[in-house]
Amino acid sequence: MAKQESMSLLVTGSIGIDTVSSPHGQADAVLGGSAVYFSFAATQYAPVRLVGVVGDDFPDKFRTTLGSRNIDLAGLETRAGSKTFRWTGKFEGDMNEAETVDVDLNVLAERGPTVPDSFADTDVVFLANTHPALQRELLSQVRSPKLVVCDTMNLWITTERDSLIETLKAVNGVIINDAESRQLSGKTNLIEAGEWILGLGPKFVIVKKGEHGCLLVTPEGPAAVPAFPTKDVKDPTGAGDSFAGGTLGYLCEQGNSELHTLRNAIVRGTVAASFTIEDFSLGRVKDLARADVDARIQAFKSMLRFE
Amino acid sequence: MAKQESMSLLVTGSIGIDTVSSPHGQADAVLGGSAVYFSFAATQYAPVRLVGVVGDDFPDKFRTTLGSRNIDLAGLETRAGSKTFRWTGKFEGDMNEAETVDVDLNVLAERGPTVPDSFADTDVVFLANTHPALQRELLSQVRSPKLVVCDTMNLWITTERDSLIETLKAVNGVIINDAESRQLSGKTNLIEAGEWILGLGPKFVIVKKGEHGCLLVTPEGPAAVPAFPTKDVKDPTGAGDSFAGGTLGYLCEQGNSELHTLRNAIVRGTVAASFTIEDFSLGRVKDLARADVDARIQAFKSMLRFE
Repeated sequence: MAKQESMSLLVTGSIGIDTVSSPHGQADAVLGGSAVYFSFAATQYAPVRLVGVVGDDFPDKFRTTLGSRNIDLAGLETRAGSKTFRWTGKFEGDMNEAETVDVDLNVLAERGPTVPDSFADTDVVFLANTHPALQRELLSQVRSPKLVVCDTMNLWITTERDSLIETLKAVNGVIINDAESRQLSGKTNLIEAGEWILGLGPKFVIVKKGEHGCLLVTPEGPAAVPAFPTKDVKDPTGAGDSFAGGTLGYLCEQGNSELHTLRNAIVRGTVAASFTIEDFSLGRVKDLARADVDARIQAFKSMLRFE
Repeated sequence: MAKQESMSLLVTGSIGIDTVSSPHGQADAVLGGSAVYFSFAATQYAPVRLVGVVGDDFPDKFRTTLGSRNIDLAGLETRAGSKTFRWTGKFEGDMNEAETVDVDLNVLAERGPTVPDSFADTDVVFLANTHPALQRELLSQVRSPKLVVCDTMNLWITTERDSLIETLKAVNGVIINDAESRQLSGKTNLIEAGEWILGLGPKFVIVKKGEHGCLLVTPEGPAAVPAFPTKDVKDPTGAGDSFAGGTLGYLCEQGNSELHTLRNAIVRGTVAASFTIEDFSLGRVKDLARADVDARIQAFKSMLRFE
């Protein structure tokens, strides 16, 4: 992807109603979903085109929240007679992993959303976790994307491996967590796991390690950043999707995905995630000012500057 | 600890004969022990005074290896009629944790070593893991140390908690692993765990996280570095003690333990550990040139420099 002005950014993924508890409290029926967390992080850097589907039970107040940022909702389908995806999860102990208490796929178990014509010229596409065949179907509706990045999950690695491999061959970058990268590749060393995925075609793999930060694997070698050290963790829901949003939003703003830019992008992703986890749902990020983001990026860069 | 030329560095800890297996091979009856790994890392920056005890079965070839670096062996007691500490361990999977297959404490179960008079004027002391009462007894034999740092282990947290707390109150810094810091403090968040230990008196706590790097906790706030990303992990034995050696060796060389110096020191510790794990026993580090260490430090610093 060559340098270009004002690249457009599209995300496909879930829009949900979450109920989450952690040692720091509980939030009932709040706005969530991968595409939502991604969008709020990415709009710090670039407008976002959101593609997803909700039921006719989707509350107006959530629509208002989504509309409060630079998010184009032309791809948000409200399906009559269907119900919105609902997830109930719990974080305990070190809060590094969510325990799913209950999940109602609802509209996510039906046919997928459609990319509107007005989005077909998108430059950068993030395919958040969903069935890998649906990821490809959505991607096929974008005419000539310059950069395509996907996520996935353990379920598809187990049940839809061939289809997932096909998706991985069709993307330029992969953002995946550590356990999934190991499961997918059969490699325990995370650099080797990332390189195994590079072998399928992508130009970069970012392995997310939760509170331990992330690892960037490229043909030119690996790089790593720790998580932004913080005591202020209320609800890790959406951290990974916020990371992806900050990372891809920055790549869009910069107009390229060269190694140098990728390395700077994962710092933006890390900082985006660090804000998300400070409150339940979008509490911390829905009105977050760019100046606050930039101040934390400066603090983080200083922390990582050594002599 | 104020700036000063050529500070002296002393380590007390184990000197052992290890048998280690990992997915990459096996090493039988090789030189090991916390004080040994510490010393080989630290001598990249400063001469080391070693205090420890072995049995009369301690092989001459190991003595020769120890003598090949700038390690003063005046505090190495060879106890007639006793046997050297032996440890057999196994690493599997992600190799993040050793499984102890067999351990013969031997001479380590007898009375501790003695700090020779010629070492009593030492400036910087590292008390590697041993019974916390023995750590204090050894420390009491150093007249007026400027900087004292200790490690510990889960066993003492469980069985000798009061004694351990007494030791922690007597030191300036603590280097401890993540699980131990959580067990000791009852805090799951590692910054909170570190701060709990700071509450006992130390001026800094370094939480080691294995393949995930480390966290520095100080009254002025936290800092973090990832591990040096590498595929080349043969045997993680001694990584933590090498980390401590690189860190304290650098503090000695610099002659202070201010925050700025501490932050640079953990980079040296991280790089020291990254070499140790590339081979069994001291295979990679026993003849390691300072130029190789410095080159990796430069590479690591570049990897952590963001815009």
